[in-house]
Amino acid sequence: MTGYVPGEQPRGDSIIKLNTNENPYLPSPRVLAALRKATNGSLRLYPEPSSDTLRSAAAEVYGVLPENIIAGNGSDEILSMLLRSFVGPGDRVAFPVPTYSLYDTLIEIQDGVRAAVDYPSDFSLPESLAAQNAALTFLCNPNAPSGTLVGLQGVEQLARRVAGILVVDEAYVDFAGSEGASSLPLIRRLPNLVVLRSFSKSFSLAGMRIGLGFAPEELISGMMKVKDSYNVNRLSMVAATAALQDIPWMTRNVRRIQRSRGKLTAGLKRLGYHVYPSHANFVLAQMKGANLKGVYEALKRKNILVRYFEAPGLEDCLRISVGAPQEMKALMNELEAIGRTPPP
Amino acid sequence: MTGYVPGEQPRGDSIIKLNTNENPYLPSPRVLAALRKATNGSLRLYPEPSSDTLRSAAAEVYGVLPENIIAGNGSDEILSMLLRSFVGPGDRVAFPVPTYSLYDTLIEIQDGVRAAVDYPSDFSLPESLAAQNAALTFLCNPNAPSGTLVGLQGVEQLARRVAGILVVDEAYVDFAGSEGASSLPLIRRLPNLVVLRSFSKSFSLAGMRIGLGFAPEELISGMMKVKDSYNVNRLSMVAATAALQDIPWMTRNVRRIQRSRGKLTAGLKRLGYHVYPSHANFVLAQMKGANLKGVYEALKRKNILVRYFEAPGLEDCLRISVGAPQEMKALMNELEAIGRTPPP
Repeated sequence: MTGYVPGEQPRGDSIIKLNTNENPYLPSPRVLAALRKATNGSLRLYPEPSSDTLRSAAAEVYGVLPENIIAGNGSDEILSMLLRSFVGPGDRVAFPVPTYSLYDTLIEIQDGVRAAVDYPSDFSLPESLAAQNAALTFLCNPNAPSGTLVGLQGVEQLARRVAGILVVDEAYVDFAGSEGASSLPLIRRLPNLVVLRSFSKSFSLAGMRIGLGFAPEELISGMMKVKDSYNVNRLSMVAATAALQDIPWMTRNVRRIQRSRGKLTAGLKRLGYHVYPSHANFVLAQMKGANLKGVYEALKRKNILVRYFEAPGLEDCLRISVGAPQEMKALMNELEAIGRTPPP
Repeated sequence: MTGYVPGEQPRGDSIIKLNTNENPYLPSPRVLAALRKATNGSLRLYPEPSSDTLRSAAAEVYGVLPENIIAGNGSDEILSMLLRSFVGPGDRVAFPVPTYSLYDTLIEIQDGVRAAVDYPSDFSLPESLAAQNAALTFLCNPNAPSGTLVGLQGVEQLARRVAGILVVDEAYVDFAGSEGASSLPLIRRLPNLVVLRSFSKSFSLAGMRIGLGFAPEELISGMMKVKDSYNVNRLSMVAATAALQDIPWMTRNVRRIQRSRGKLTAGLKRLGYHVYPSHANFVLAQMKGANLKGVYEALKRKNILVRYFEAPGLEDCLRISVGAPQEMKALMNELEAIGRTPPP
C-alpha cells in the first residue's frame, strides 16, 4: 500500500500557501495567551486521559453532553478510531468520490472493502450511496475538494437508510454559506450518526492537531476503547478550550474568508473557470477538459502553491484555499498572466 | 473489550503523585523558552508531516540516520502503528508478563492473538519467549512494573531467534543503572529490531506526548504508511527538539532520581518489603503473599497515590514512582505508620 500523501508543506516565508486549506488569519489572542500561561512545569505530568476539560467546554458551546464527545489528535485520529472500532477485515466502507483521500488509506490499513460511489457532476448525494450495505459510510460535508454542501434533510435520510454508521466529516462546516448547515443537532435522534469537527480550519489551529467527534453516547464509548490513553497533549487541549471561549474571533475570520471566497469565485469565473459553489475555505476551479498541471506548475514557479490532484476526473481542476486579500490578488494576477500566455 | 485503564490522574496540587511514573523535576528551561517562542501565528499552519526537524535532531543525538526514526504522539502511538503495520487478524503477538498492560489492549483492537509468557520470579528473559512464532514480540526494557533490565546480549539473542519483529520498549532506559543498557546500537545489524523511546519520563515531558521509534529504514517505511499524516503537533515537536539540545539537564535529573531510588529501595527493605532491582524511575515493592490493596488505600487517604494492580500475581506488590526527596520522605513516614498499625 502507498499511504496518504498530504499536501506539500514547504518551509520559507515567501511562499503563498493555498494548498492545504489553512486559515490565513491568526488564532485568537486568547489562545496564544492561554498557551503561554500553560507553558510551565506541569508539562512533566500526563494530560487528562479523556480530555474532560475540553469535552465540557465543547458540550457547552455545541449544546450536547460531554458523553457525546470524543477528542482526537486531529479529526484524522478520530477517523482512524472509527475504522478501528467499527470496521473489521472485509467490512464495506462507503463514500461518494471524489472526496478526502485519507478515507482510502484508512480503509486499506484496516483491510476494509472500499465501496466508492461517483458523485454526479453537481456533487449532489448519489442515490446509490445508502444501498452499499456498509459498516461505515463517510460523507465529507462540505465536501473536499468540491466545497459543495449536502443539506440537512439529505443527511438525515442517508443516516436512516444506511446499514451501519454514518460519519459526517464537518471539518469545513463553519464556512458554510447558510446557517444550520451542521448535522450536529441530529445526533440526538439518529443512533448511528457521528459528526466530526476540526480546529484546524475555522479556528486557525492546524498546527495543534485537535478534532472532536460528536455522537450518541454508545458510539462514543466504543471509540473510547480504541483511543490511545493520552491522545491529546496538554497544550493542544488548552488551545482548543481557549478557542471555544472566543467564538466571535472565529466567526469574524470566517466572515472575512467568505467575502474573499466570493471575490475569488467571481474572479475565476471571469477567467473562464467553472467554480463549484463553495461552502468551505477553498474553491474547486475547473477548466473543462483541460489538464491544469501546467497552471499548477506555473503558479508554483511564482511561489504560489495550490493543490493539483493527479486523479482521474480531477486533472481539469485546481483546489485553491481562500487566503488573505493580498494573497488572492497575487494569485489572480498570476492566473491572468498565465491566461494571456497559455503553456506550450 | 474493555480498553486500557491508565493510572489515576487526579486534579489538585496537594496530592503526592507516585502512580504514573512522571518525573518530579521540571522540563529544561530551554524547552519552556522554545515553546513560548513558538507560541505564535504559525500555529495556524499544519506541522511537518513527518516531523523531520525532530528526526534530524534525534539522529544527531543518537548516532543514526533520520530514515531510521519515526516520531509519534507518545510512544503509545508508535506501539499502535506497529500493531497496524505488522499484525493482521490471527497473528501472534508475544511478550513476557507481567508488563505494560497496553500491549494487551492493542492486540485486542487488532484482533491479534496474545502469546504471553510468564517471567520467572527474577524477571530474567523467559526461555520460551523466542519460540512463540509471533509476528511481533514486545520486550519492555527496563520492564514495567518490575523495573528490571535484560542485558544487551539477551536482547540480541532474542532478536535473532524470534520469527518476526522484536520491539524493545525503552521508555525507562535513561534511568538504567548501567551505561550501555540501550539496544539502540543494535538496529544497525538486526533487520527485525525496533527500539522505542519516550520524552515522558527522563525528559519530564509526559504532558506533550512525544515518542520516537528507531529501526532499520525498511521497517520505518512500513510504519510511515499507517501513520496519521500530521501526527505530531508543532509545539510537541518544538519541545522534543529543544529537549534533545539540553541532554545535561535530563542526565542531571536522572542522577537525582537514581539517588532517590537507592534511598527509597533501602527504606522499603528496612520495612520488610522485597524490592526488585530497579533500572527505572519507579520501584516494585513486594510483601510476599500479602494483599497490599489496603496499604494502597491507606496511602491514598493520606493523599499519596501509588499504583496497585488488580492482577493475578501482583496483589502483593505496589509500584511506586520515584518522586522528589520530600515526597519520598512523606511516603516513608506514612508507610512506617501503616506498618505499625496493620490494616484489620
